Amino acid sequence: MTLDNSWFSEPYDVTGSAFSLKIKAKLHDEQTPFQHIEIYETESYGRLMVFDGCVMLTTLDNFIYHEMMSHPALLSHPEPCDVLIIGGGDCGTLREVLKHDSVQRCVQVDIDERVTRVSEDYFPELCDSNNDARAELLFDDGIQYVADCADAQFDVIIIDSTDPVGQAARLFGTEFYTDCQRITRDGGILVAQSESPLKQLDLIKSMSNNMRSAGYSSTHTFEFPQSCYPTGWWSCTLAGKENNFENIRPLDNGVTTKYYTTESHLGGLVLRPFIQDALK
Amino acid sequence: MTLDNSWFSEPYDVTGSAFSLKIKAKLHDEQTPFQHIEIYETESYGRLMVFDGCVMLTTLDNFIYHEMMSHPALLSHPEPCDVLIIGGGDCGTLREVLKHDSVQRCVQVDIDERVTRVSEDYFPELCDSNNDARAELLFDDGIQYVADCADAQFDVIIIDSTDPVGQAARLFGTEFYTDCQRITRDGGILVAQSESPLKQLDLIKSMSNNMRSAGYSSTHTFEFPQSCYPTGWWSCTLAGKENNFENIRPLDNGVTTKYYTTESHLGGLVLRPFIQDALK
Repeated sequence: MTLDNSWFSEPYDVTGSAFSLKIKAKLHDEQTPFQHIEIYETESYGRLMVFDGCVMLTTLDNFIYHEMMSHPALLSHPEPCDVLIIGGGDCGTLREVLKHDSVQRCVQVDIDERVTRVSEDYFPELCDSNNDARAELLFDDGIQYVADCADAQFDVIIIDSTDPVGQAARLFGTEFYTDCQRITRDGGILVAQSESPLKQLDLIKSMSNNMRSAGYSSTHTFEFPQSCYPTGWWSCTLAGKENNFENIRPLDNGVTTKYYTTESHLGGLVLRPFIQDALK
Repeated sequence: MTLDNSWFSEPYDVTGSAFSLKIKAKLHDEQTPFQHIEIYETESYGRLMVFDGCVMLTTLDNFIYHEMMSHPALLSHPEPCDVLIIGGGDCGTLREVLKHDSVQRCVQVDIDERVTRVSEDYFPELCDSNNDARAELLFDDGIQYVADCADAQFDVIIIDSTDPVGQAARLFGTEFYTDCQRITRDGGILVAQSESPLKQLDLIKSMSNNMRSAGYSSTHTFEFPQSCYPTGWWSCTLAGKENNFENIRPLDNGVTTKYYTTESHLGGLVLRPFIQDALK
């Protein structure tokens, strides 16, 4: 059967598949200097944020992505104090980072202020921590910010980017990772969203290679379900300056998660065999 | 945008979402006494098997489902000798079960012989073990088979069913599980596919309750990505007669998997917090 225009559909060239959500209403439509932002009310995934026709997040399933972009990296570091997020304008990753008591400062650099303002309006639950005194929200070019930054300023850097298309492609390259490596303190960790383990293992391999070329000594990829992203399966890739990813801390007392568990983090330290084969 | 008829689309009422695959060609179309079977060649997921408009499996991602329907249950049993599969006519689960040296006999009861014949033609890799001397392929009503079966015949029973719609709904009920419990030996385990953890936790809870009502003393749900199924995220639920799911064996030497690892199995023994909350 065909899907009519009561559905929002995103077909993916890379994967030859498409994901669609039944729409109740369009709530917002805006062309910013950087992208076309749309917000929809869906039948069953809550609200849907779309940039340039690509699904960014839904109310229903964003918790998985935001937890996996933050907790594995932060809990692989003995005491993360200063954290940098590149992208992440919806502020969901920021909220998870600020659950960690050791964090004294979290700088978020997203090029498009409108993303944050729209998120505050339509996904207020993600913006709970925007007024936390430790949060520093900058609206600027993340690549330039990292290039201009002094050495050894951060313990954890999180690349919460869109797909490697157009300007965002540079966020997956060796030059950018080299700057990240330079501004990371000893023992520091980089984590980047790294697309679908089912269909984009070549990209994951190239990202890992680029991270090592940039001077990181170790990399590791974690995979997680993400219903609204291509193939319904997503990943993040960590890089460490000299980090042993196997020394993980438990979550602080009182910190709650919906998806992340220490046990699954430990389980994920061993790659799925088909991923391990592909990354060899 | 709308998806035209170069795509196969399956919209899901329960989840208000849809999954689509770009089609190269239709390879097979057949109305059996039980269902409408279609086979497509897709752009990027290999071949696609569809029953009555619902995606059953694709070449690309079926390995996850078949491994998770077999290895967690079999490795939670100290020495599974006799295994029963209800449904599973594509034979992918059978192939995984027969990787275990302890298994002396695996009876598969699928109501529709055409599923197996079509799978042999279009998914021959799933049918590698159909001629194994330990495999017994019956084409009959699984509910009747279980009702007629003598007590304590099997160590592991696998319910590899379609969705809880029409006739298959009975495969999710207490009456059927009670018969399963009766024909399971002491220490035996039941495992059933249990739909989407993102959108069908009510069903998972009701299945778990039904299993306990049927006399099983413990249940546990494992979740796994499954790109081609609703929400891209799926689950299986295990029930044990007096089993401790935490005593798991490693895979036998020489047995290879693409998705399953002992470490992820151990990690999965702790439920994701949002699943744990829902199943309370």
